[in-house]
Amino acid sequence: MSKEIKKKPQLELNPNVSVDCVIFGFDFDKLNVLVINRSEKEGIQWALPGNLIYDAEHLDEAANRVLEELTGLKKIYLEQIGAFGDPNRISKESDRSWLQSIRAQPEARVITVAYFSLVKMEDYQPQPSSFATSAEWIPVNEIRELAFDHFEILQAAKARLKQMIKIRPIGFNLLPEKFTLSQLHKLYEAILDKPLDKRNFRRKIQKLKIVYSLKEKQSGVPHKPSQLFSFNTEHYLELTQTGYDNFGF
Amino acid sequence: MSKEIKKKPQLELNPNVSVDCVIFGFDFDKLNVLVINRSEKEGIQWALPGNLIYDAEHLDEAANRVLEELTGLKKIYLEQIGAFGDPNRISKESDRSWLQSIRAQPEARVITVAYFSLVKMEDYQPQPSSFATSAEWIPVNEIRELAFDHFEILQAAKARLKQMIKIRPIGFNLLPEKFTLSQLHKLYEAILDKPLDKRNFRRKIQKLKIVYSLKEKQSGVPHKPSQLFSFNTEHYLELTQTGYDNFGF
Repeated sequence: MSKEIKKKPQLELNPNVSVDCVIFGFDFDKLNVLVINRSEKEGIQWALPGNLIYDAEHLDEAANRVLEELTGLKKIYLEQIGAFGDPNRISKESDRSWLQSIRAQPEARVITVAYFSLVKMEDYQPQPSSFATSAEWIPVNEIRELAFDHFEILQAAKARLKQMIKIRPIGFNLLPEKFTLSQLHKLYEAILDKPLDKRNFRRKIQKLKIVYSLKEKQSGVPHKPSQLFSFNTEHYLELTQTGYDNFGF
Repeated sequence: MSKEIKKKPQLELNPNVSVDCVIFGFDFDKLNVLVINRSEKEGIQWALPGNLIYDAEHLDEAANRVLEELTGLKKIYLEQIGAFGDPNRISKESDRSWLQSIRAQPEARVITVAYFSLVKMEDYQPQPSSFATSAEWIPVNEIRELAFDHFEILQAAKARLKQMIKIRPIGFNLLPEKFTLSQLHKLYEAILDKPLDKRNFRRKIQKLKIVYSLKEKQSGVPHKPSQLFSFNTEHYLELTQTGYDNFGF
């Protein structure tokens, strides 16, 4: 008689580890965040797109998979914020009843690994699926509450973004190839969540040498056309790696 | 007959989540890191102090508990680096046999949450216990290999430290109350792992207003006594919270 071997299934969800994604979108005016509604029955319950990881996948892969499953957004560069592990992070009553409806082990302790990204909103039209009944861009400053500890995660992501802008350039993937310094200024103001002196900002940006002036102005605008700029790709990417040595905003 | 109720034990180790700590120590010359040897039988196998978390504890608590259990170091301010979750991170042969000797579920997927800290070495004399057969300070630049993915975690911690020094002050807990600018300079060089121009460094530090000159010089030194300085505590702590707005090294 051969010994019975219990074959481990290829894909097994790990009951204790999840990933959550904070996707920021810039609409040329303000920062927005991509949220899903996880419940049709109980009205709107906004949450960050997130779910348990599979035992065989990398955390980064899991984040990309979950984001695609819930919102349709694919191949986005995600950066890890860190792990969130308050033992009570999933014990709100509304969260528990939802977990009981979808999880195999709803009582298991779950720590989550949070990711964030910054994308151009017009390129990413969310398509909800899986347990997401809808997926929407909502202005960050209008969000007051989210499921689980997602509001706390959102605050951490905002803080990380503000910190990042002090040490390396941001914006390459957020602006069109040709842009005005006003658009870049708006982006930095949206991320830092405060007004920035225009002249000071321009002086700093020019000192960083990440943009160069084109021999071209805006066209078809209802105001006096502004000078157009482009990113100095090589220097920009170098600074993305090494960071600023003497700068901050 | 009463229904049998299986009582959940208060303390249960979670098989899937661990914490690991990178404790940097400064000996007034170079950066060191606190490592443990986890095995008596198989020669030296350096590892970062780390272990599984209990289901009921916060990640931060777990990191402090594990650090104390393995090295005797207590109440250290630890900062999270992030989660490390390569599905193969614990599959080296030497790691597997060790795990089989100490873990209830040695085959379980483990993601680890890494922490780091910076302490004054003279204040922390490690006392190994639990499965640590020894605990030692080793110069960071002499480490070539560690258990699991701990070498990768160490590199991430070094990078984080370098990044941090660009955006907020470091050193308050690392230097005596009165110190020379040479000692501070040495600390920044050790963290940034490169020589820094002395005059440039002094200019930047003074511009940051984090130190002030005392009306006092060193005594009992075999060279010309240097001017002593002290940290401007209030301004220092403010910068620790808000970060530099215009600086970097």
